[in-house]
Formats: sequence, structure tokens, C-alpha cells
Amino acid sequence: MIHINDNYLKLKASYLFSDIAKRVAAHQQRRPEPAVIRLGIGDVTRALPDACVSAFHSAVDEMGADASFRGYGPEQGYEFLREAIAENDFQARGADINADEIFVSDGAKCDTGNIQEIFDGRSRIAIPDPVYPVYLDTNVMAGRTGDYRNGRYEGIVYLDGSADNGFVPDLPEEPVDLIYLCFPNNPTGATITKSQLKAWVDYAVASKAIILYDAAYEAFIRDDTLPRSIYEIDGARQVAIEFRSFSKTAGFTGTRCAYTVVPRSLMAYTASGDPHPVHSLWNRRHSTKFNGVSYPVQRAAEAVYSDVGKRQVAELIDYYMTNADLIRQAMQSLGYPCIGGKNSPYIWVSTGGKSWAFFDMLLEKTGVVCTPGAGFGTCGEGHIRISAFNSHENVSTAMSRIRQALS
Amino acid sequence: MIHINDNYLKLKASYLFSDIAKRVAAHQQRRPEPAVIRLGIGDVTRALPDACVSAFHSAVDEMGADASFRGYGPEQGYEFLREAIAENDFQARGADINADEIFVSDGAKCDTGNIQEIFDGRSRIAIPDPVYPVYLDTNVMAGRTGDYRNGRYEGIVYLDGSADNGFVPDLPEEPVDLIYLCFPNNPTGATITKSQLKAWVDYAVASKAIILYDAAYEAFIRDDTLPRSIYEIDGARQVAIEFRSFSKTAGFTGTRCAYTVVPRSLMAYTASGDPHPVHSLWNRRHSTKFNGVSYPVQRAAEAVYSDVGKRQVAELIDYYMTNADLIRQAMQSLGYPCIGGKNSPYIWVSTGGKSWAFFDMLLEKTGVVCTPGAGFGTCGEGHIRISAFNSHENVSTAMSRIRQALS
Repeated sequence: MIHINDNYLKLKASYLFSDIAKRVAAHQQRRPEPAVIRLGIGDVTRALPDACVSAFHSAVDEMGADASFRGYGPEQGYEFLREAIAENDFQARGADINADEIFVSDGAKCDTGNIQEIFDGRSRIAIPDPVYPVYLDTNVMAGRTGDYRNGRYEGIVYLDGSADNGFVPDLPEEPVDLIYLCFPNNPTGATITKSQLKAWVDYAVASKAIILYDAAYEAFIRDDTLPRSIYEIDGARQVAIEFRSFSKTAGFTGTRCAYTVVPRSLMAYTASGDPHPVHSLWNRRHSTKFNGVSYPVQRAAEAVYSDVGKRQVAELIDYYMTNADLIRQAMQSLGYPCIGGKNSPYIWVSTGGKSWAFFDMLLEKTGVVCTPGAGFGTCGEGHIRISAFNSHENVSTAMSRIRQALS
Repeated sequence: MIHINDNYLKLKASYLFSDIAKRVAAHQQRRPEPAVIRLGIGDVTRALPDACVSAFHSAVDEMGADASFRGYGPEQGYEFLREAIAENDFQARGADINADEIFVSDGAKCDTGNIQEIFDGRSRIAIPDPVYPVYLDTNVMAGRTGDYRNGRYEGIVYLDGSADNGFVPDLPEEPVDLIYLCFPNNPTGATITKSQLKAWVDYAVASKAIILYDAAYEAFIRDDTLPRSIYEIDGARQVAIEFRSFSKTAGFTGTRCAYTVVPRSLMAYTASGDPHPVHSLWNRRHSTKFNGVSYPVQRAAEAVYSDVGKRQVAELIDYYMTNADLIRQAMQSLGYPCIGGKNSPYIWVSTGGKSWAFFDMLLEKTGVVCTPGAGFGTCGEGHIRISAFNSHENVSTAMSRIRQALS
């Protein structure tokens, strides 16, 4: 008799964004006007940069002629893309990362979800609260937790975020093996300084732990003193894996391209305590269960690093950051304390009450959709996330409605 | 201290196709002429059909304009593609499959590799020998096997293929929970009849097992009496998951699109023996660890089902099958018994000796690259796989060289 992976039964029944979708649909049924403005899910709204579109078309043409057709590519990604990434995203910032340490993939969600597979099933996991749900859910599926009780899974070391620590969690008090960090943070928009990040790297070195560093939002950092990669920190090559994505950088959420950095010097340990390169484990996982990113998509991603591509991506980021400024200013002027929105497309608003209640009130009074902080963990309670991913027009209409309704 | 998933240490050190690549490189060094002809790896060589190229371009244009831009799509795939698949690949052949039972993905390798996650870690696994290595390797990684000894992993029920059973394995003698089947088979090219497949379905129904049916090569079936989908068999909706791909059908190996069918009536069982829908498990896995296929790629795949797309795909298949005929006839005329090549792009040749020795001899004498059968399992010993994926010119040159050298 075939049995299911019983760990799936521990997963909370419903998913944050489907709950939101249901409430929004019900609201639209009751109140079709004014039109709903979605500042909830973190999805980009603007077209791909022209440089990417041109490169995309050229590569599709290549696929349409026998002489230039490409079949299976390297599972790890084409050299042209891996080299552009290593040079531009790392070496240019003084981070010592080589092309063969880059694994191109179809999404940071996939990579952050799959990475835990290569580690021991009994690893002690540290996960921030609040946080993007994928880190937690994929460890639940893998059986690294007990049951879900009072909003938390047994067996996980939660790293609490709060107004006190500015949603940059403190080092754990109990020993952990695998640490998820995400900066600029989703959902809080909080950023981490070099000295704060150095403390995490030092902790990981001292305890032979590994940091899984999700930097999907690094392109939004405007403060040059903040680290954009964990590899800007001494010692990180020994203890960190970094996840990046073209989704938010260049509008690739529907086009799908991302990458993961696994330094060759990163070690995990066998049962007998011998060091084993993580690079070879991830390479084996990646080449056995993945068959590479679509070739035209890789060419579109490569174009992000051309001169014109860089300029167009910068304009795209500026566009959304203008929205972020608008949102943060509006919410602050109404007396709501905010984090994020300065080096991040997310504004994390302290609501002074239950976050689902604020979500419902905001939807009812203004037709604006946000994301309730409680959906990201118990420490998210009392907050909402507002996303800057929308048109200037929609964001400014949304803020007018909010000012009118809440002041 | 972070420990590795020790199961990875059980994996055989090297991978079939990298071994081949090394031997070919060494050969080319020694003997640059005549040029090597690769009939080894099963990768297509001809351009994408024009219908797909046009649809691909249109969708890239949509992504290049704010008004038509698409961000995150549904993880399960767009309705337009899921409906085209359900109608054309299943309903048109009398197989009762609905669009919401289709999960679009970026590859059958990913899906056949990931599917085991949703089942219990102690499931008893039946895997054909010889077979595509991904089924086995992903179960090793998940810890469902013991060590590798004498060419086999402990704890796996191997389903032996041989000349006697025409490489369609017999039902297992011991109880199993999860059964991998692949027809038309990779590597043997063997096909299964409806009555043979019915016996497997009946077995699975009786023993509450699940069949994982890899039909990536169904487009090559020319004999209308053979099943192209397991859902043409009564009872299969209760016991089978089917994997399909556009890779070999429409030349998508470098473009990346595939799908998996999970009928809503398919059940697995909780620890207490209660039935649980597999659809909801896979949906949870898919939406937690995957973020959908690139939108332009899904539009390109949809074009496979247009009238002109169907015609162009049929021409593509015919082209490769003309090669398959050439190869089979050449090898048979030299006295080598062959399986496959009639309803499959692979010809499985009985070499009468060790398969790596035949591989080396063939490479040395003719510059033709095949795949040694032993690389697919112990029962593959004494065979080689020759692939029809190449140009007419290359295949006919290769066969001339082989006739000359071996007759």
C-alpha cells in the first residue's frame, strides 16, 4: 500500500495569498467600485526592459533555425550568463565569486525550497519570523519539524523580529545548523548592515553552521554602505549560500530566471565529522533533478548586464522606489510607524492592531489590497506589508484614498 | 554542526553521459578525422516548429509592453495550455483527463525526480532495469535505498528487462508501493501493449500501489493499437500519474516545457490507512517549490496544438523516425538483434559482448558515439542504445561507416 509523506499533513491548511484572493473576490462582489488596487502580492507590473526583449527575440530566432538551434544546455546554466553574473554582481563589488560557483535556475522560490534536501534531515533550522513562507514549508515537508501549535511548528528555532531589533533578528541562544536570512527582507523591507551581517557570519564560522542568504531584493538597495551580497563579508565564502533572482530586478516574475551561489570553499560535514564540499552536493542535486533554464530566457537575462540593460534596469528600480517613497511618506504622515521602503520595495507598517482586521478595514474603506503581516509568522502580527510594485498612478490613487479614509 | 544528507554519498561517483563525454574527447584528441557523429545522448537537433517560434515571439512582445505584460502566472500553468493538453492529448483519444489535472512544468526530468517527495520515505520502489537513471538516483537521495553493491542499490525491487520479455518487465513477485514504468522506453525503445499495461494497472489496483508512467516518447508511436497514455487503460485514473514532455515531441529540450497528470481520483494512504488525494499533495508541492513555466514558453507550447503546429510536429517526428528506420535496418542487416526504432527514436542493439567494449570499438573504428547499455543498469549489459536524433545526413554517414567497418 502506497503511503503519503505524512509531513504534508502538518502544513497549515491554507496559503496566505489564496486567503487574500478569496477576501478580495468577495469584496469585489459586494462593491465593484472603486476598482480594487493591489499592493499585496510582490509581483512586478512593468514590461521587461527593451534590452532583454531584444535579446529574447534573437534567441528565439536562433531556436527557429537548424543551424543555430540549441537543445539541452548545461544544467548549471550557460557560461555566458554565469560569467556575466560573477563579474557584474560579485567581482565588481569586491566579492570573490567565480562563474563556476553560480547555478542558474528558474526561480529563487525553487532554489530556496530545494536547498534543504542536500542537508541532514535532523538539522536544526533557524528561521526568521516574520518571513517568506517557503523556507518553513519546505522544511515541514521534509520532516524537520513537529506539529503546528499556536502559530508555530515544533522543532524550529524562530528568530524573532520586532520593532526593538528593527526586524533584524538577534543571534540564536540555542545551537542551530542551518540559518535562513533574507535582506532586504521580505516582508519587512528591513536591511542589515555589514557589521550586523559580520556577526552572523562569525557565528556560523564558530558553530560550523550554514547561512542560506536570500538576496532577491538586493537591487533595491540605495544606501551604498549596506552589503548587497553576503560575500562582501569576510568569511562568508566558508559558511554561506546566496540566492538571487531576476524577478524583481528586471521584471522576470513571468519570464523565470534566478541563480544560486555555492562557493567551492563551503563545507558541510559527514556523519563522522569530515568536511564535504556543498558545491558537489548541490551540483549533483541540480543536474539530477533539473535540466537547465530555457535558452532564450538565459539570453534575456544576460542582457541585464549590457550597458543599456543596466540603465534600463536602474530606471525600473527607480520607478518602483518612487512608489515606495510615496507609500512610506503617506503611511508615516498618518502616524503609522514604518520599516522598509528605503532600500526595499516593501513597506512594513505597524498597524497598532490585528493585521487581518487592518487588512479587512483597508479593503473595505479604500479598495486597497495589502498583505497582513500575521500571514508571515506570529511576529508579523500587528503589521501589514505594502508593496511598491504597481504603476505610479495606482499607487498615488491608493495613497489618496488611504489619506482620505484614515486621516 | 551542519551535516550533509548522507544518502548522497551512496550515489555512484560518475554519471553516464559525463563518462561518454570524456571518452569522446580523448578519441577526438587522438583522431580528429573523420568527425565524430553523436548518436548517444537523446537530444533533438532540429529547429523548433515555425508555429512555436511565431507564438514564442508574440508572447515576448507581450512581455515587452506594460499593457500586456504578465508577472507571476499560476504555478500549475496557464489555463490556455492546460486545456489544449487535456483536449488534444487525452480527451481526443478517449482518455478522461481534465485541464485541472494537468500540472505544467519545466521538464519531465524535474517532475519524475521530484514526484517521490510526496510519498512515504519507506515506500517500496520498483524500478525497471535498464532505465533512465533519474528514477533511481532521486530515490537514493531520498534515502529509500541501502548501499550500492554489484551494480545495484539494496532495497530497490528491480524489474528485469531481457530479450525473453522483450524488455517489458514482468509483474514483481514481492509487494511494492511505487512502480516506475516508461513506454516507449528509454533506453530500449520497447513499447507496451494495452493488455500488458492493463495487467500493471490491475496489479496496482489490487495492491494499492501507484504507477509513475513516463510517456515522454509517446509522440513516436506509429502503431495505432499501442496505448499513448496510461489513461487509455480502464482503472488507470485510480492508480497512475503520467509524465509528458514537449522536449522530444516538438524539440523543446532547450526551451523547457513538460507536464504531469495527476487524476483527482488517485489516492495514496495515510499512516492509519485512510485514502488521501495525491492531487492535493502534488499541488501543494508544486505551488510551494515551483513558480510556473516562463509565459512565452507556455505560448510556444500551446502552438503545438494548433493545426499548423500539429502538422509541423508530425513532420519533425517523421524526420527522426526515418532515421530510426535507417539505423534499425543497418544494424539488423549486420546481424545485430534490435528492439525499438519502430515506435521510438531509440534502437536497442544486442552487441553479443560487453557494452562499454562495443562503445569503444564503435568509436575507434567509425567515430560514431552510441550509449553503452550497461550505463542504464545491469540488465543493459550486452546492449547499446543508438539515438535517431540527428540529421539524415549524419545518420546515413554513420550507418555507412558502420556497415563498412563491421561487415
